[in-house]
Amino acid sequence: MKLSTRNQLPGSVTAVITGEAIAVVKIALDRGAEITSAITKDAAQDLGLVEGTRVLALIKSTEVALAVD
Amino acid sequence: MKLSTRNQLPGSVTAVITGEAIAVVKIALDRGAEITSAITKDAAQDLGLVEGTRVLALIKSTEVALAVD
Amino acid sequence: MKLSTRNQLPGSVTAVITGEAIAVVKIALDRGAEITSAITKDAAQDLGLVEGTRVLALIKSTEVALAVD
Amino acid sequence: MKLSTRNQLPGSVTAVITGEAIAVVKIALDRGAEITSAITKDAAQDLGLVEGTRVLALIKSTEVALAVD
Amino acid sequence: MKLSTRNQLPGSVTAVITGEAIAVVKIALDRGAEITSAITKDAAQDLGLVEGTRVLALIKSTEVALAVD
Amino acid sequence: MKLSTRNQLPGSVTAVITGEAIAVVKIALDRGAEITSAITKDAAQDLGLVEGTRVLALIKSTEVALAVD
Repeated sequence: MKLSTRNQLPGSVTAVITGEAIAVVKIALDRGAEITSAITKDAAQDLGLVEGTRVLALIKSTEVALAVD
Repeated sequence: MKLSTRNQLPGSVTAVITGEAIAVVKIALDRGAEITSAITKDAAQDLGLVEGTRVLALIKSTEVALAVD
Repeated sequence: MKLSTRNQLPGSVTAVITGEAIAVVKIALDRGAEITSAITKDAAQDLGLVEGTRVLALIKSTEVALAVD
Repeated sequence: MKLSTRNQLPGSVTAVITGEAIAVVKIALDRGAEITSAITKDAAQDLGLVEGTRVLALIKSTEVALAVD
Repeated sequence: MKLSTRNQLPGSVTAVITGEAIAVVKIALDRGAEITSAITKDAAQDLGLVEGTRVLALIKSTEVALAVD
Repeated sequence: MKLSTRNQLPGSVTAVITGEAIAVVKIALDRGAEITSAITKDAAQDLGLVEGTRVLALIKSTEVALAVD
């Protein structure tokens, strides 16, 4: 499967904080930064996300804002 | 200024493709990956984005989907 | 590849309107409705989108608002 | 009221999972697919969403990514 | 029609910048601030947006980030 | 720090509803309207958001839909 999503960053799950409806997932990118993702609890369970799971973080270009100093 | 935005990735602009309404900006992250951002043309001009401009890519956690193999 | 993205709707491309930076893609869903997607021009080209291309429309749950009468 | 939102899919609520802050709503589209929406708990209550409520799922075009095989 | 969208800000269109695929719309809110919206060109045409058109700016809560000094 | 984000609306926090993963924040804009924001619980804690905290609500133009009567 090939995605239109331009930004695909590989990493490993470091934590999953699960609420009633939403789960917040922390990912250590292979390149060294940390990424946070908020998905439905169902999605986190379907993907079997636990500490150490290999994932791609997917970010649509229209969702990336920029800042300059 | 401190942002609620969890994901803030530093890098340098490598290209700005400007349309009538929207600009697509390519960023080489310091950590090594490439990020694409789509913002308004006005925003790209206000920030003075050209090749080499230092930027932070800002991504709200609710915008990050995940994939597993 | 398995996605956290809850909403995955199969269909066929019916039109691609390409600007300088962004492409708007019309999709006839197999179930009968029409979907519009706005992605970068680069993404549309990488996926080789033309009339008739089979696609999945991917929509993160946090992006779905609801209306009632 | 007429919306800029291109994607308006009619259906019926099949489940509402309510957390402290966010509610996840499952909708069976009239066309046959299932859609998941994540909205604030307040919004779910204001709309009076329960199993069987008729809704439109509203999705902005910039939020629709595409995948090809 | 009642929307789950929490943020509905009334105003008047002050400018429409139309590209091939996307239109950027400037709105003067009745309360005094200016809002920019990026929608498809088709949407701008369907709504008949011109200078002076009365609109509601609709913003899903999950799309609102916060900053503190 | 200067942001590409076109829409920056100043106000004061009036309520923070905190779930396990997500916090919903109510803001009274200085101009008079109310805005709701959904961010991660971590973000709300890092920013120290309590009733009365001064904030900017930040909204990317691609996230603003429009409605006409």
